[in-house]
Formats: sequence, C-alpha cells, structure tokens
Amino acid sequence: MLTALLFCGAFTAVAKDRISKQTAECLECHSSTTTGIVKQWEKSAHWSSGVGCYECHKAEKTDADAMDHYGFTVAIIVSPRDCGQCHAKETAEQEASHHAKAGDILNTKDGILGQTVGGEPAVAVACRQCHGSIVKVNADGTLDTGTWPNTGIGRVNPDGSKGTCSACHTRHRFSKEQARQPETCGKCHLGPDHPQKEVYEESKHGILYRAFKDDMNMDKSKWVSGEDYFDAATCATCHMSATRNQGVTHDVGTRLSWDLRAPVSKRTANSPEKLKAMKDVCSSCHAGPFVDGFYKQLDEFVEFYNNKFAIPAREIRALLIKEGVLTKANFDDKIDWIYWELWHHEGRRARHGAAMSGPDYAWWHGIYEVAKHFYTELLPEAKEACEKAGKPEVYKQIIAKYIDGRKEHEWYTKGFDKKRIQEMKKYYQERYQQKVD
Amino acid sequence: MLTALLFCGAFTAVAKDRISKQTAECLECHSSTTTGIVKQWEKSAHWSSGVGCYECHKAEKTDADAMDHYGFTVAIIVSPRDCGQCHAKETAEQEASHHAKAGDILNTKDGILGQTVGGEPAVAVACRQCHGSIVKVNADGTLDTGTWPNTGIGRVNPDGSKGTCSACHTRHRFSKEQARQPETCGKCHLGPDHPQKEVYEESKHGILYRAFKDDMNMDKSKWVSGEDYFDAATCATCHMSATRNQGVTHDVGTRLSWDLRAPVSKRTANSPEKLKAMKDVCSSCHAGPFVDGFYKQLDEFVEFYNNKFAIPAREIRALLIKEGVLTKANFDDKIDWIYWELWHHEGRRARHGAAMSGPDYAWWHGIYEVAKHFYTELLPEAKEACEKAGKPEVYKQIIAKYIDGRKEHEWYTKGFDKKRIQEMKKYYQERYQQKVD
Amino acid sequence: MLTALLFCGAFTAVAKDRISKQTAECLECHSSTTTGIVKQWEKSAHWSSGVGCYECHKAEKTDADAMDHYGFTVAIIVSPRDCGQCHAKETAEQEASHHAKAGDILNTKDGILGQTVGGEPAVAVACRQCHGSIVKVNADGTLDTGTWPNTGIGRVNPDGSKGTCSACHTRHRFSKEQARQPETCGKCHLGPDHPQKEVYEESKHGILYRAFKDDMNMDKSKWVSGEDYFDAATCATCHMSATRNQGVTHDVGTRLSWDLRAPVSKRTANSPEKLKAMKDVCSSCHAGPFVDGFYKQLDEFVEFYNNKFAIPAREIRALLIKEGVLTKANFDDKIDWIYWELWHHEGRRARHGAAMSGPDYAWWHGIYEVAKHFYTELLPEAKEACEKAGKPEVYKQIIAKYIDGRKEHEWYTKGFDKKRIQEMKKYYQERYQQKVD
Repeated sequence: MLTALLFCGAFTAVAKDRISKQTAECLECHSSTTTGIVKQWEKSAHWSSGVGCYECHKAEKTDADAMDHYGFTVAIIVSPRDCGQCHAKETAEQEASHHAKAGDILNTKDGILGQTVGGEPAVAVACRQCHGSIVKVNADGTLDTGTWPNTGIGRVNPDGSKGTCSACHTRHRFSKEQARQPETCGKCHLGPDHPQKEVYEESKHGILYRAFKDDMNMDKSKWVSGEDYFDAATCATCHMSATRNQGVTHDVGTRLSWDLRAPVSKRTANSPEKLKAMKDVCSSCHAGPFVDGFYKQLDEFVEFYNNKFAIPAREIRALLIKEGVLTKANFDDKIDWIYWELWHHEGRRARHGAAMSGPDYAWWHGIYEVAKHFYTELLPEAKEACEKAGKPEVYKQIIAKYIDGRKEHEWYTKGFDKKRIQEMKKYYQERYQQKVD
Repeated sequence: MLTALLFCGAFTAVAKDRISKQTAECLECHSSTTTGIVKQWEKSAHWSSGVGCYECHKAEKTDADAMDHYGFTVAIIVSPRDCGQCHAKETAEQEASHHAKAGDILNTKDGILGQTVGGEPAVAVACRQCHGSIVKVNADGTLDTGTWPNTGIGRVNPDGSKGTCSACHTRHRFSKEQARQPETCGKCHLGPDHPQKEVYEESKHGILYRAFKDDMNMDKSKWVSGEDYFDAATCATCHMSATRNQGVTHDVGTRLSWDLRAPVSKRTANSPEKLKAMKDVCSSCHAGPFVDGFYKQLDEFVEFYNNKFAIPAREIRALLIKEGVLTKANFDDKIDWIYWELWHHEGRRARHGAAMSGPDYAWWHGIYEVAKHFYTELLPEAKEACEKAGKPEVYKQIIAKYIDGRKEHEWYTKGFDKKRIQEMKKYYQERYQQKVD
Repeated sequence: MLTALLFCGAFTAVAKDRISKQTAECLECHSSTTTGIVKQWEKSAHWSSGVGCYECHKAEKTDADAMDHYGFTVAIIVSPRDCGQCHAKETAEQEASHHAKAGDILNTKDGILGQTVGGEPAVAVACRQCHGSIVKVNADGTLDTGTWPNTGIGRVNPDGSKGTCSACHTRHRFSKEQARQPETCGKCHLGPDHPQKEVYEESKHGILYRAFKDDMNMDKSKWVSGEDYFDAATCATCHMSATRNQGVTHDVGTRLSWDLRAPVSKRTANSPEKLKAMKDVCSSCHAGPFVDGFYKQLDEFVEFYNNKFAIPAREIRALLIKEGVLTKANFDDKIDWIYWELWHHEGRRARHGAAMSGPDYAWWHGIYEVAKHFYTELLPEAKEACEKAGKPEVYKQIIAKYIDGRKEHEWYTKGFDKKRIQEMKKYYQERYQQKVD
C-alpha cells in the first residue's frame, strides 16, 4: 500500500512535469470554475500523456474562431483537424466516412422537411444535434448560438474540417470504453426511422453485451474480437473494430454491403469486398454455414421488401403524379406522407431488424406496418384520389399492373385461403379452447 | 498468488484430462477458426465438467442431420433431446410447456397473417426467430437456410424434438446468470403486442433489478427468492425459479392464473393452484394484504377490460358480419384491423401493464388506446359501414344494445359531467394559472 | 481478516443492542414469513441506526388505519409524516413540491379522461399508481383495496399527509443510490406524454451515466456534482441534488424556469431565480458560453413551438367551438383528440426532447408529429367540419388568419421551394446514386 502511494505520488509528479505551463495556468481557474471537466480530464489518457487544455484549445490568431482568453489565444471548438495532429490515421478515416458528411444533408441541399414543415429552431435543437451544424463565428469571435453548442457528427467547423470526434469520444474523459459502448451510437441511431439501438438491444448480441460487459475488456487499447473479448459484439465490433484479420477503422461504411437506408435497397459500391470484411467479423464466433445462412435469409428478405412493397409503392406514386392525380409537390398529398413513412420509417425498421437480428423490429415495427399501410392506406387512398380526379381508369391500371395476377397479393383480392382459416380455428380451439372469429 | 497460479494450473490439467479425445481434436482447428465460441465454452460449467464440442454435437449416422466433418459424425443442431441426456428434468418440463409449442402457431395452422399479408422471407427473419422454424435438412445433409439459422424457442428439430435450449441459455457459455436476466426473455417478449420487457423495466421490480443486480447472486446454482436474493424479482423469479416452498420449473405457465393473451381474458385451467404458486413467490417480499390487494385490483381491471371493451367489440364485429355489413374474410375490412389491434396490441399492453405493475403501459399504451379506438374508430366505422351497406338499422341495434343505457358509456352519448368539467377548469386555474378549453 | 470478522461481529452485536424489543418481536415472525423485506432492511442505513419495523409502523390507537397485530398497534402505511419524525427537512420540502400534489389532479377535480373514457379499475392500476390514491380505510381498519396497494407519489394518506417517500426510496432498503438512479424517476416519467426517461437515455448525460455509473459514488451521503462525481448528470443531479453552491432539495420544481407541460408553454413563477439555480448545476461541467447557448436554443425552440403550432391550434379549436362548428364537449369531436395529443403527447415530447438534449425526441417523436398532424389532420379536419356544418367561411377565416401570409406556413399553400428541391435531387444523385421522387 505504501508502495502504491509512493508510486502514485511519483506518477502524478511525472505527469505534472509533463503538463505544459499554459495548461497549468488554465487549471488555476478551471479547477474551481468548471471542476467537472477538469476531473474528467484527470481520468483520461490525455492527462497521463500530458495533453492538457492548452494543447487542444490553443489557436492561431488568424483562426476564424480564435479568441483572447486571459492572455491566451484559444478556440472553444477542437476540430478533427486539431485532434488529427496526434491522431492522424483516425482523423483521415473519419474524414472519408459518411459520418463526416452527415451535415451536408441538412445544411447544403436537403433538410427541406425539417426547415419548412418544421422550422429553423427545431432544426437547431433536433436534426443538427445529430447531423451537425455549420458553425458560424460572430464578428466578435464568439460562436453563433443558432449553430453552437453542437456536437453533431458531421459538424462543419470554423476551420473547414468536417465532423466532431467528441460526438462519440465524449469530452473530457475521451474514454475508449465509453466510445465503444452501443449507447454511444444510440445517441443518433435510434427512433422511428433508424432504430439500430432498439434492434441491437433486442438481439442476442445486445442481450449478451448486457450480461457480460464487465468481461469484455472494453477499455483495452488492443481490442480484437475473438481474442480480447468474445462474449458479445457491439456496434463497434461489427462496423469499426479489429478482428484477427483486419484492423480498426473509423470509416464506418466499409463493411456494409447493402444500402438499407434508401427507399429501395441496393448493393453498395464494392459490396463483395465489404461483405467479406463483415463476414470476417462474424466468423470470430460463428461458423461458415451459420454466417452464409444468415446472409441468405437477409438477402431474400431485402429482395422481398423491394419487390413486394417498395418498388410497387414508388411506381404507383410516380404513376399517380404522371397521370396528374397527385401534384408533383412533396408532402401536400396524403399519399406523399404514406409513401414517405412506408420506406423511411417502417421499411427501414424492417430492414434494420432483419440485418441486426431483431425479429420484433423486422416484423411488428417493420413489415407488418409496411404491409398494413400498403393495403389499407396506399391502395385505398390511390383509389380515392383517382376517383376524385375523375380518372378511375388510372387506379384500374394500377391494380392490373401491380396487384392482379401477382401471387403475393392474391389474398387482397381473393381473401385468405379458406382451408387454412378452418385449420387455424381448429388449432385455437384445441390449444387454447378459444373461438377465433 | 503463487498458490493461486499453481491451483489454476492444476485445475486446468484436471479439466484437460476430462476433455475427450474427440473434443480435443475439434479444438485443434476451432481454437483458431472460431475462437470466440471456444473461449465462451472455456468459461462454461460444461468446460469444467468435461463436456465439450463432441459430447453435444456427436450424431448417429442415421440421424437426419448427421454429417461427416473431418472423420467425425456430427450435427450442427444440438436439440433438447441432446441436452436432455444430462438435463432430463429440465428438458421434460420444457417439453410440456407452451414454449415448446411456440412453433406450432406459425408452422402448422396459423401464421396466416405473416405468410400472406407479409411473406415467407419475412416469416423467416421475423416470426420464426422467436417462435421457431421447422428445420429442414437438405438431401446432402446440410440445413436448409430458409429454416436455419434459427434459435426460436419452439423450433422443431430434425430429431422431432421441439424447442431449443439455447434460445435462453445462449451458446456456448450457457451461463445461468445470463439465462436469468430479464433481457434474455426480452428477446421475444417485447414490442407492440406483448411488451413484457418494457413493462418490467417500468416496474419497481425492474428498477430495483437495475439498482441491485450485483447483489443478487445471479450465478448461484441454488437461487431461492428471499433466501439467496431479495432485492428484486426478475422474469425468472416469478415464472420459473425456486422459492422456499416450491422448486424451479422450466414449464413457464405453471403460475399463470389469467390468460391475458386472448381477445377476451379468462382464467387458465387449474387457476387456483397456479395463483397459489404465484402468490407464494410474491410472499417472499410482500405481506398477505398487499398481495391480495394487488390481485383484487388486477382482477377488477381484467373484468373491466373484458366487459367495457373486449366483449362488446367482439360482438359488434360478429354482428356486422352476421348482418352482411362486413365480409367474413379477415383483414379486408377496416374494422378487422381495428378490432385486431384493439385486443392483440392495445388490450394486451393494458393487461400486461396491470399484471406486472407498469402503470404507463396499463393506461397510455393500453386502455387509453383501447378506449380511443373503440369510441373514435370502431363505432364510427361501424356506423359508416352500416350506412354504406344500406343497413343503418344495424348500427342503431348496436348502439341500443351496447352503448345506450350503459353507465360506463354514458359520456359518449351525453358528454362529460358538466359540474366536473367546471371543477377541473377551476383546478387548473388555481394550480397552474392555466386556462383549459 | 480476523480483525474484520471481529469488528463485524462486534458491529452486529451493537446494532442488535440498538434494535428495540418491539422490533425484535416483529422479526421473530417476519424473518421467516417475509424474509425478503427483512433482508432488505438489514442492508439499510435504518438497520445500522437501529430503526426497525416497530419504529416506522407503530401507530396510535386513534389513528385511522391503526390495527392490532399480535398485541401491537401498528399501521401498514408509513406516511411522510411518519418519516418526517427523523427526516423533517426532506419531508417539508416534499410537502411543498408538485410531487405531493400529484394526487389532486386525479382525485379531486380532474382525471375525467381516465374515469369516464376509461374507468375506475383502470384508474386504480394505472393513473393512481403514479399520481397516488386517496387511501380509504375500511370500517374494520383494513385498507380498501381499490385505493391500496399504492405508492403513487401524491398519495393522500389516512393521516391526511400527502405523498409517499417510498415512491422513490423503495422499501425496505431505502437506498440513496437507488433513489438517485434515473430508472427510479422513470417509474412515472416515461411514455407518450412525458418521455423524460427515454430522452435522458438518448442524451449524452444518459450515455455517460451508463458508461461511468460505477465511478459516480452514487451511495455517498455527500453527493455534490463536480466534487463527488463528475462523469454524468442524473435526473437527481439537475433537479434535486447539491452543487458546490446550493444544497439538496426534495422540492423538484425549484430549478424549472419553463412550464413545458401546458398546451402553450410559459415561464414559471420566479423563473429567473430558478434558471439561475439550474445554470449553477450545468456549470459544474459546462462553461458559460455553452450553457447560455444551450438555453438560447431551447428558448427559441419553445417560442417556435408556441407560435407556429400550439397557439394557432388552440385558437383554431376555440374558434370552431365559438362558431358552433364543434361542440363544447370534450373528446366528442375528432379535433378534440387531435388537439389533445398535439400538445399533451407530441408537443411535450418535442419540448422535453429539446430541454434535455434528446434530438430524436425533439424532432421525430416531437415536432415532426406536431407538424404532420397540424397540417394533415387538424387543418383538413377543420375544413371538413366547417363544410359539414354549412359554414365554409369559418375555415376561410382560419386560413386567412393563421396560414396565409405567414412565412412559416408558406410551403403549405405554395409548395416547397422548387430550386431547393432541384438541389436536393442533385445531391441525392451525387452522394447516393439515388433518384428521389
């Protein structure tokens, strides 16, 4: 114990030696004004490496967001470019990733839904908190509060760099363990339109993570699946972390062989290579036939979603627009909303549920909703719209092309198979003594 | 420490002696090809008992799914029959349970909704991942990927046995602690149609589990409530595990005195005995008046759900079919869908919320939705359907029989009590300085 | 180790000395009848202070709920007045809080929705389990099971006191750590109408809590943010617990400067003082510009919600009632339900999401739903209701006053900006090779 204390004291002293004079000055005030962040930092690898306040926050006078702070030239925002001074590989990977571009979708061309149907203040506290803002610097060097505080993963920084490392590596502890936790990804990857967090929690991977997290060496620098941990896969395991055959990457899309985001799913660019990288992760714990069988089921499911619902729904809406039944404008017809949620919410839930082994999301939150709304909203609404427009023949054309004669929609026009209904009723009677109507 | 190392080394040696020659051969490859599962197994009780790869996966040449694997005759699937060679009591209980029959509902007679409104590939990745598939063996002895990978709890195995132990006891660590965790049950018992996991998390039981899990000796072989742990009840505690007065059981229905699954709830067979078994669990921590009071509230709630909503809704739909207002076919009328979700989704949420002490599920996700859809969808839709069918008298008959003169529906025809509305407005004004419309 | 055992033995002996003769008699039976609660109590600070069964449950013969129990006069319910004998400050704060009044809303004047659209048995298992019941004592001194078991936070006790300490400090361990956990608050603060638990879990605070809970000294008596813990804020941190500048309080509303509960939000009484108290909490970890920027974004968001949606929606409904298009009665017109959920469910989700940094709740569960229902349900339904009532001019008046000429609703009448749509399509083509309709 005495040894431990001595060692501890010695280590602190060494670390203190390493702390720059400037950082020591920062700490003079900040140890009492914002104690929390100082104490977080004292637990970080930065602390033991002597990387302190000044090393990260120092700025050049010419920097857009430079400000004088008690004689020091500093900036509030530490951008990936700043982090990249030490973490060059990670920053480069991050810059090449979809994550770094997440702000574009809101700030440059899209975000129309949020900004018009919603409004600017909603975009600030909602969309941009995940996607990232374009941080504006006021004339006096302070940050514009419409665009900051913001740690969205695609933030466009005053230095022009894109992204923010602290979106995942939360300041000021910058813990590897925390960054690897599924909850970290769940900051943004959740909810009605991409419930990856919820799907993960339902999956065996999530169940095992909850059970065995403490055995998983989450804080190790070297964190190779099947070697340093083996009880569960986290988001990081599959999408970023090392296996015995491949290194860690901060470009999160490199193992994704399907685009499950789009209205109609298609393979990503270089998908065979990406699929191979992902299967390599799976094989830390799963044998070949399991992995191949899993992907066969997934592929067939995605094709099924595309062909039974997504493509017909898209084409039906396009036809209604072409024939003048609907306007070309977005979100001004009921069908615009139905179609939008069908693919953007329900169809994604279905596909993510299937891809990440969350059966409840694949079915009840997914295909069940897709199917229900396809049959009970999209088609009836199309019919009504055609009738109102005085063009009932357009609806007949739709039914002829997309429904009649297609085996998978037979129940809709001819009803459920009567023999199976009888069997089902008998089954309920026998098992549950329940009369089913 | 030296002693510890010596002991550890000795123990390993003993265990190695126990490992069969066949398993040792398996490990020669699998230690490097699928390291994860080998390391999981090394943490299992199987490892220390010398039960290895070969002991579980060995097969007879005549087995349907036997395959030659580098000179060994093995099968991928380890069925309850295989597990039962050592765990006979547990397997027998499991075989007698509803769990073992979960596949029937999909595979033999029901699953019509999933297979027709949805489709086969959705059933494979969704329904069957909880309920279980009928595993098909290809001519070459490999497993058909439409039916496997699958660990659904009612899986029908190539050897004819039903169920899969690893649905809960996840391979290859087979941890008691993990199997007892509520998250394990939450793989399937969640979502819009049976949110037991969500209800549990809201309940005091779930809150206390989260707070005190580390004190609960979750990994002990003997795990008696009130004796080995006492801070919280888990799913297993109430439905499976031992008390001071009864043993553990793998037949999960033996303590359920209400069927809260069906459209209209009724008592289960031998419900007094089952209720007694459950109350015995409660009494590990709750005194008699508490337990009796709890069940009185639950019973009154279930009767209320049955009588105010479930029975009238069922009878109204039946009458509409009988009178030719609706077709007999399923899911082709709006009311089919309304009625279906009313009992299968909302009504279950209400009942499960009440039964497991999750007030938010009993009300907002439950009765609030039931009531809202009964009054604002089922009745108006019935009215419209009767009018469209030229039979407005059928709706009058419905109102006369189910609504008029029934105290509990008085507000619907006569409006809220005016005096109470005035009092309520005054209350909001006084407490919140808020004008309520 | 020997010393530890000796000390332990000694301590037990001392504690046993402290246990009253009466409590010792209680334990004679209850150690074997309700072992769980006795063991919980043995882990409590009450045990080590010699506060046992009798000290809390003893009653005067004249108490409304006094009962004779094997020669002792005791009561089942331990009310805040009982707890206040030792914990006077906490009880006084609690009595002054909104928490203590939570039962009023159901029991005295409101709760109309629950009691009429729902029904008494639903109120018992649902509403009152959070809000609290008025506990009734039967003629024989037992508690009326319609009103008990109940640990709702605003329970009206037989002694006239309001509240129940065990709503949060769960009996019989009464753990500080457990009471401080966000899950404890999540017993009631969750769900469609006030998803504080879900928002917290999405937020950085919740993510960090999950990562670092074990480092947070949750069981310390003195628990000052930035001093005794600094990794994350919990519900308690912001709303109740001590900072270096202010003490702990059991009056949970003292730091809330906005009323985000009402249909239209306004500042609370003495809001500057309350805001100052909350910003003091923030500043344990966040510097001034961050905190000010956060509140600027929140304030703008709340004003935006009020002005774009909440006030117009309220006034439109009021106008429809005034003009005789809708009845004055509640919940008998579609618009009653639309307006109710717009503010009570969706609008609260939006505001809570913004206030607690859960972007998904602010947008997808919040403003997206508010906006969607404002444009696609409230307005069309108002139009239809006016037409049905033969008063189309009322709808024209609504559009003229609330929609036309208002920049924020321009898209609704004129469509999305065509140039931006073109840019958006180009963007999707370039980034995703995706054609957007």
